[in-house]
Amino acid sequence: MSYARQMLDTYPRAWTIDADVLAAAIDALSDCTQACHADNAADLSEQNVTEMVTCIRLCLDCVDVCTATAGVLSRQAEYDAGLTRPLLEACVAICKSCGDECERHARMHEHCRVCGEACRRCERACRGLLAALK
Amino acid sequence: MSYARQMLDTYPRAWTIDADVLAAAIDALSDCTQACHADNAADLSEQNVTEMVTCIRLCLDCVDVCTATAGVLSRQAEYDAGLTRPLLEACVAICKSCGDECERHARMHEHCRVCGEACRRCERACRGLLAALK
Amino acid sequence: MSYARQMLDTYPRAWTIDADVLAAAIDALSDCTQACHADNAADLSEQNVTEMVTCIRLCLDCVDVCTATAGVLSRQAEYDAGLTRPLLEACVAICKSCGDECERHARMHEHCRVCGEACRRCERACRGLLAALK
Amino acid sequence: MSYARQMLDTYPRAWTIDADVLAAAIDALSDCTQACHADNAADLSEQNVTEMVTCIRLCLDCVDVCTATAGVLSRQAEYDAGLTRPLLEACVAICKSCGDECERHARMHEHCRVCGEACRRCERACRGLLAALK
Repeated sequence: MSYARQMLDTYPRAWTIDADVLAAAIDALSDCTQACHADNAADLSEQNVTEMVTCIRLCLDCVDVCTATAGVLSRQAEYDAGLTRPLLEACVAICKSCGDECERHARMHEHCRVCGEACRRCERACRGLLAALK
Repeated sequence: MSYARQMLDTYPRAWTIDADVLAAAIDALSDCTQACHADNAADLSEQNVTEMVTCIRLCLDCVDVCTATAGVLSRQAEYDAGLTRPLLEACVAICKSCGDECERHARMHEHCRVCGEACRRCERACRGLLAALK
Repeated sequence: MSYARQMLDTYPRAWTIDADVLAAAIDALSDCTQACHADNAADLSEQNVTEMVTCIRLCLDCVDVCTATAGVLSRQAEYDAGLTRPLLEACVAICKSCGDECERHARMHEHCRVCGEACRRCERACRGLLAALK
Repeated sequence: MSYARQMLDTYPRAWTIDADVLAAAIDALSDCTQACHADNAADLSEQNVTEMVTCIRLCLDCVDVCTATAGVLSRQAEYDAGLTRPLLEACVAICKSCGDECERHARMHEHCRVCGEACRRCERACRGLLAALK
């Protein structure tokens, strides 16, 4: 069980969202950040770096947005739709773009295949949380 | 002239947004991050910290969202509406909430007054950029 | 196997550090960030928030330093002792301080017990990496 | 006067460091983050991106370390040498490396010249703070 999941049982929250759905999103955001950090680093080590520029940019955006969203979700005591919804929508958007771009390079670069998988999982987890918030 | 503004003149961008509007947003995000970091630290030093809990939380959310948005805006080579719009909307939402809460404490705590001002300016700059993107 | 660990096998690195030791540090930094985000949020929800101020501050420092270190370690193509050593030392210091403070509250607050555990694990993993770099 | 500087006058701090020296460091860290974000983005837009790989990597490290240091410095209520010193040393190291690399490209790329300047200023400000802490 991840630290995020363990922590959600240890204190009372006014936010009545299912703890498993919330923890799944935080874990996926954290994993996606890890994968995108590693993937842009690996892209920069490739000989065909010119072809990897879009992938590098999208990975960097993905790190920034996932990091912020993980922080905000960890901190929500009450649900603030005005902040949480657009932030999750931004996450879904960048995870989708980054996942698509990573998959384009998946056959050539195993690191892009792995990163694409982390992006897909994060996109799904953020969509799942958005659906649960409706 | 800020570094963000200077930099926008030094290389060709496909994103045809007005450089002054874009730099104003990046600068306001950077200032708001500074102010919110300092304000939550100051809140934690106050004797009535119990009354400052909401302000602390909102400042921390504001730091996370503004930091991510500044990164993404600095990096956009082409405009990606799917990412940029919801991210700016999340920024407007948190800057508004955080600015409102800071103003509630403005008479009692000068640091909250200053931080509220930075949040308002950032909210306006992000709204300005959103309008320019239409 | 974590994404960090998987990624390290997918591309050639000039940095000849053992991949298991490096991935263990990145994973522990990522987990510690998660735990410290959740713990400062939980602290802010406690009735005795005044007594939790030091814990909140240390958790926030720990998030900032662990986040930066995870980014830098993920990106290192070559080992740069001038950067990596003091950064890991800063990590060890804040994980120790934060872990000590969390343990002080461990009996009263289960979230502090869990967070203290994440800090200890991260401190050990960073010390392990520092030792491997000698 | 920057927000960081304004804020330091609004609440009592146990940390007896000169407010101008501290604010100068926080401002320089914030500016350097802005410049390094913009510079790695600009590098990624250059035709000779293969030659810019080291510059991109160093800019990304510089963003991560400067962001964390600005957060920690903003939050210090009391001076914690075990954390602050190595973190500032890491900052000095990466600002120096990044500034050196930027200067190598300064004639060819104006964005690297501007970024190199921001790195130098940040390196000096962090050294100044380290000296004041002795």
